[in-house]
Amino acid sequence: MKTIVTTFLSLFIISQAFAQSDYEKDSVFIKSIFTEALEHGHSYDNLRFLCKNIGARLSGSEEAAKAVEWGEELMRNSGFDSVWLQPVMVPHWVRGKEEKARIILSNGKSIDVDVTALGNSEGSGEKGVEAKVVEVKSIKELKAKSKEEIEGKIVFINDPMPLDLINPNEMYGQTSAIRFDGPADASRLGAVGVITRSLNPATDDYPHTGVMSYGENARKIPAASLSTKDSDYLSKALKQDPGLEFYLETHCGMKEDVPSNNVVGEIKGSEDPDEIIVVGGHLDSWDVGEGAHDDGAGVIHAQESLRILKALDYQPKHTIRVVFYMNEENGSEGGKKYAQLAQKNREKHIAAIESDIGGFLPLGFNVDAADPVVEKIQGWKKLFGPYHMHEFQKGYGGADINPLKEQDGVPLLGLWVNTQMYFNLHHSEQDTFDKVVRRELEMGCAGVASMIYLIDQHEL
Amino acid sequence: MKTIVTTFLSLFIISQAFAQSDYEKDSVFIKSIFTEALEHGHSYDNLRFLCKNIGARLSGSEEAAKAVEWGEELMRNSGFDSVWLQPVMVPHWVRGKEEKARIILSNGKSIDVDVTALGNSEGSGEKGVEAKVVEVKSIKELKAKSKEEIEGKIVFINDPMPLDLINPNEMYGQTSAIRFDGPADASRLGAVGVITRSLNPATDDYPHTGVMSYGENARKIPAASLSTKDSDYLSKALKQDPGLEFYLETHCGMKEDVPSNNVVGEIKGSEDPDEIIVVGGHLDSWDVGEGAHDDGAGVIHAQESLRILKALDYQPKHTIRVVFYMNEENGSEGGKKYAQLAQKNREKHIAAIESDIGGFLPLGFNVDAADPVVEKIQGWKKLFGPYHMHEFQKGYGGADINPLKEQDGVPLLGLWVNTQMYFNLHHSEQDTFDKVVRRELEMGCAGVASMIYLIDQHEL
Repeated sequence: MKTIVTTFLSLFIISQAFAQSDYEKDSVFIKSIFTEALEHGHSYDNLRFLCKNIGARLSGSEEAAKAVEWGEELMRNSGFDSVWLQPVMVPHWVRGKEEKARIILSNGKSIDVDVTALGNSEGSGEKGVEAKVVEVKSIKELKAKSKEEIEGKIVFINDPMPLDLINPNEMYGQTSAIRFDGPADASRLGAVGVITRSLNPATDDYPHTGVMSYGENARKIPAASLSTKDSDYLSKALKQDPGLEFYLETHCGMKEDVPSNNVVGEIKGSEDPDEIIVVGGHLDSWDVGEGAHDDGAGVIHAQESLRILKALDYQPKHTIRVVFYMNEENGSEGGKKYAQLAQKNREKHIAAIESDIGGFLPLGFNVDAADPVVEKIQGWKKLFGPYHMHEFQKGYGGADINPLKEQDGVPLLGLWVNTQMYFNLHHSEQDTFDKVVRRELEMGCAGVASMIYLIDQHEL
Repeated sequence: MKTIVTTFLSLFIISQAFAQSDYEKDSVFIKSIFTEALEHGHSYDNLRFLCKNIGARLSGSEEAAKAVEWGEELMRNSGFDSVWLQPVMVPHWVRGKEEKARIILSNGKSIDVDVTALGNSEGSGEKGVEAKVVEVKSIKELKAKSKEEIEGKIVFINDPMPLDLINPNEMYGQTSAIRFDGPADASRLGAVGVITRSLNPATDDYPHTGVMSYGENARKIPAASLSTKDSDYLSKALKQDPGLEFYLETHCGMKEDVPSNNVVGEIKGSEDPDEIIVVGGHLDSWDVGEGAHDDGAGVIHAQESLRILKALDYQPKHTIRVVFYMNEENGSEGGKKYAQLAQKNREKHIAAIESDIGGFLPLGFNVDAADPVVEKIQGWKKLFGPYHMHEFQKGYGGADINPLKEQDGVPLLGLWVNTQMYFNLHHSEQDTFDKVVRRELEMGCAGVASMIYLIDQHEL
């Protein structure tokens, strides 16, 4: 018995000592990652170039093609072992001429308001639509309406984000259906147009776009979102003057699908080259703003994390792959294509990391995986403590990596950042480079690089 | 024995049950604090008024007097039980005409550069100073110089912030002596002027001011800080052209002390009215920018936290007092006066809370108190977890409350926020209202209100 106890104790001491020295080694290496990011980081200058020299880059646009060239060149200059393009067909939605919208009061007075056509919607054309307005406060309220109430009307879905929720992603989750499903729901009830309140927690003049879908058999009526300030104004005006009319003119529409590309680069693993850790963000953005936080920051997080590891002469055991996905915003064809090719090529992914909620202060990671994997990652929490990163919870990984989970059960990680300002900017002309804080972007890169390092060292 | 064990066990169970119900009650109340702040908060509009309608408000200025009036009115409108002013004499430093500065190369070519006179320094007057430049990289390097090396020269202290430090306050701590002590150290060695690199982690065109001191017997030479971009430029120019000269013209100076005020308001405690929890920020700001993050946000955090508690019909057991301190920036006379009056009036403070590092995302609190108090506060950490607040460490409370600790050993708490951008703005024309994120400011107010509530409920 004594022997057993002693042996057990010795093993325990050895394993503790090992754990301790592992912890110290990891801790020192992670510190060097942050130092490289903060002292010699390239992320801010690279993001500036993407935002200022290419700018908005919706799938199918000339700018999206330029962004692919830029991404390929950036990866080649980062000294990756190989860089290639993955061709993918993407939807090609075009906004056309600027939208027009106004409220026409019963007394004939007309007030111009700020709108933006919803992504993938079909335009009204030059003649526009003009009709009386039915305001609803939610999708549920809309669905409860009869055809008689909606027929020939413009539906105004005015569902403010629930500001009491601490997690802005939950605010978005609870309201985004007004934009995605609202137009189809209204159309099925005979509406001639839809205006939705912008998904913005702030009260301001910037309309926010984003993807919608007509679904299977809804008539393709024009759809646009209204700034939050003008939404409040319209709601008030309707109370005083229920007979007012709304005029909406949009010139957008879907064209034929066009060829585009994911950009992929990798460093081969020295021990298990056939096991891949993939990290990415999406290269496309909406056609307004500069796609700085959504998702210029994400592609930069991914590329810079590998640059940092290379700068530190880190030799990964597993293959580390960076992907700039195309078309997350209005089709997610890039993410789907990546997973299809992974299956076709019988690739084994041991983890997929995505950054698609902005370049703000990193707070941790969402982990979409089985409980033991989540717990293993939570066991690394202490290593991230010195960098404000304390939040490692079960949660959604990201739209572009989700197909890998559905297909092969790959554990997913989504970088989790301070999103308190994200939806003020998201999908609007406000999403510009000047909203990015250099040190926060750099810390995000370092956070991603640290997670790649830990997965590479300890697997999941 | 059995009886004792049972009794002990029962007590344990009862105390656990009590702790649990306490935790739930606290948790629910803290959620209601955040909801009030985020759904019905006044903080953003109040801060906008202070920044946009009063603006920069250096001690002794007309704007500082207006800010006192504004603060008094704001507290009166918040329904506090009593509001009063605490007269305090403050230094009156005046910038005068705009500074001029240029590099004059040996070939006669001259380049204008961006400077700002350091607070409390004496100006050169119209004639300016022009001299050759000695660059040093630190205060230590300056102190090691001989009189012969410095006599008749302008000293340029070019000590970049150490970007690898994760905590920006530590970056500031390690470099701020170049601004505070540098001019006196250079003067004692016979320098005719001093220029310091701005205490700014970013490389940009904005010079940052801040307080300096000539100490006891240094000649009052002109002193200004140079933007980080121009500091890099000057350093490079000196390498190529060591004989270049620098011209500095400042028109600032100290006037006679003038009367001003702290603004104080309180809600009387229902059980222990003689025990005070004080919370505050400073009302004065530098004369550039709008004093939005430094420290408009701090006074708003303090006032709004009490407004929230009142809006929730919370009846505090202890007296809760809000103070807008005057003159933190260039003398801290307000904080000293508050402590003196507390002593004179034999007031008992059970805790003092300060917010003076900006209106960014709150991350926790620094606690400057004995270990058992620090541990007690750390025991409340879980209650703050849902709000991104995880960092409760022993640390500095704040300049305005520090006299209370020195005098009476009062436990101090400093609100701790995400300061990654703070020193980019700090003491420069960049510290304006548009840099404040509404939800982050509101969460800071809620974080402070929650801490007041917990101290009031459970003491320290």
